[in-house]
Amino acid sequence: MAKRKMILDLDTGIDDSLAIAYALGAPDVDLIGIVGSYGNVVVEAGGQNALKILELLGHTDIPVYLGESHSSTSDHFDRMEVSANIHGQNGIGEVDLPEPTRAIEKESGVDFIIDAAHKYGKDLTLVPTGPMTNLAAALKKAPEIANEIGNMTFMGGALTMPGNVTAYAEANINQDAEAANAVLTSPLHSTMVGLDVTLRTLLTKKETKQWRELGTVAGEKFADIVDYYIEAYKQFNDNLGGCALHDPLAVGVALDPSFVTTIDLNMVVNYNKETYGRTIGDDNRLNEPTNVKVAVMVDKDRYLKVFMNYLTALFKANK
Amino acid sequence: MAKRKMILDLDTGIDDSLAIAYALGAPDVDLIGIVGSYGNVVVEAGGQNALKILELLGHTDIPVYLGESHSSTSDHFDRMEVSANIHGQNGIGEVDLPEPTRAIEKESGVDFIIDAAHKYGKDLTLVPTGPMTNLAAALKKAPEIANEIGNMTFMGGALTMPGNVTAYAEANINQDAEAANAVLTSPLHSTMVGLDVTLRTLLTKKETKQWRELGTVAGEKFADIVDYYIEAYKQFNDNLGGCALHDPLAVGVALDPSFVTTIDLNMVVNYNKETYGRTIGDDNRLNEPTNVKVAVMVDKDRYLKVFMNYLTALFKANK
Repeated sequence: MAKRKMILDLDTGIDDSLAIAYALGAPDVDLIGIVGSYGNVVVEAGGQNALKILELLGHTDIPVYLGESHSSTSDHFDRMEVSANIHGQNGIGEVDLPEPTRAIEKESGVDFIIDAAHKYGKDLTLVPTGPMTNLAAALKKAPEIANEIGNMTFMGGALTMPGNVTAYAEANINQDAEAANAVLTSPLHSTMVGLDVTLRTLLTKKETKQWRELGTVAGEKFADIVDYYIEAYKQFNDNLGGCALHDPLAVGVALDPSFVTTIDLNMVVNYNKETYGRTIGDDNRLNEPTNVKVAVMVDKDRYLKVFMNYLTALFKANK
Repeated sequence: MAKRKMILDLDTGIDDSLAIAYALGAPDVDLIGIVGSYGNVVVEAGGQNALKILELLGHTDIPVYLGESHSSTSDHFDRMEVSANIHGQNGIGEVDLPEPTRAIEKESGVDFIIDAAHKYGKDLTLVPTGPMTNLAAALKKAPEIANEIGNMTFMGGALTMPGNVTAYAEANINQDAEAANAVLTSPLHSTMVGLDVTLRTLLTKKETKQWRELGTVAGEKFADIVDYYIEAYKQFNDNLGGCALHDPLAVGVALDPSFVTTIDLNMVVNYNKETYGRTIGDDNRLNEPTNVKVAVMVDKDRYLKVFMNYLTALFKANK
């Protein structure tokens, strides 16, 4: 099987950790690197968490780069208190993982994205699951990559549902709406995996129990990490009955778009005060060719089956 | 062909007039009555306009009832200035039509809807293309009709696009968001034909010229009425290149749902101050069976062909 070159751009984060596991468990992925973003955690912590998760899963071969440390319109980043409540102070559910043996790369995450786009072109799959700051910076520095990157599938936004930070804004987009707008209104084609579908794709303790019962370190640690997330969801979204698989769903859709039903739109991201962070169709470009496929329905049962197959096999192999 | 019993609930209105023409031109419709609403015009003027259009099209056999004269949360209705700009002071593009020979019915429009639902049940197709005040009043008075009406397809709302009154609110919904919310959260199943699809379905002077060239009174009057609308659209939506076929598209979709692609959702209509009139998926009912099909894509070319076939034949026959 020809493997896809994949970059994950993460603010690791519990569901980001699941995204890493999904990419490592998928047989058709060559994960060439992870770019760290601020968001669920500060950028340095996100990078360290990514290294820890990679090591837990036996993949010290994969480099981790740091991206921007704050939004494109600010000079610093203050972590939201709710992020600590959902992901834990350490970002991975207060679970202790050993200090990573591998170090963060010296090259910037933004340059890594640009270089990979130049090198792999249409073979490159980029999956941002945090703020779009890094990708917007890369597009600004090297606009030609918009026409080079083969597949950009992001977790972010909400079209048919309210946001989870405000009535309009989903958390990733809300971190840097200007950057998200720059990306979505660029010539880059993308698939949006937003709350429309991720809130319908849930994991419960029934599944984490299966990981725990594997009797491996990876299985136990991931069960601990995700149980923290499930408990946090109980506090904030008690009606859901589980935790949303935001970031790993984006990886899944990047690899198999048939998990979702999409609609073709030109999208804008509002960054005025009133509707900051709203992701909405652009009624000024109704007759132009579209560049965004927005996922609006999901075959959650089939996705969850693949998700569990990939992750359980991966956790089983990492004693 | 078994004809469908249809009620139009209109605030007539230029595109409402086109909706009447579409229903009269469709071979599979038995238009059993029109209910007048406030909206584009005050309710009495809307009723008179409906009678005039029916008479112009040779259909003095169809009764017109008056519905509510103002929203469910107010005690009067002030016509918005923009309505006169778009539809003309008289609501039909300042075109003079003779005083109708038929009078408005004595029965209220709300009772007519209830009686028709009881009488025709699943054979009844109800197409509201104005505020939902009348239908909400009918559902409040006779909740059982929610399970009786066979087909409810409405023009209103915006899901994937901004509104046309505020950033969230489409004009019909904005007139009475509480009523719209009561309808959409009732057990009634419906199809939403909103700005998502109507702004993509345009008529131009190329088409009205064809009507004018028929050499009939109906063709000429409709060309005059719709040209007014097209000129108004130039002022407000110059980028569209035509006028939107809002209301007649709803009638078309009611008869042939394959004109549009829909997504299944539970919908709410916000009536708080901040997002008044926003039509959005209900994230508190993600796991419940859905009752609204929201049209998000439209086969505008095929629709326009049918639209022109129906209307041109109708105008040709009314010398």
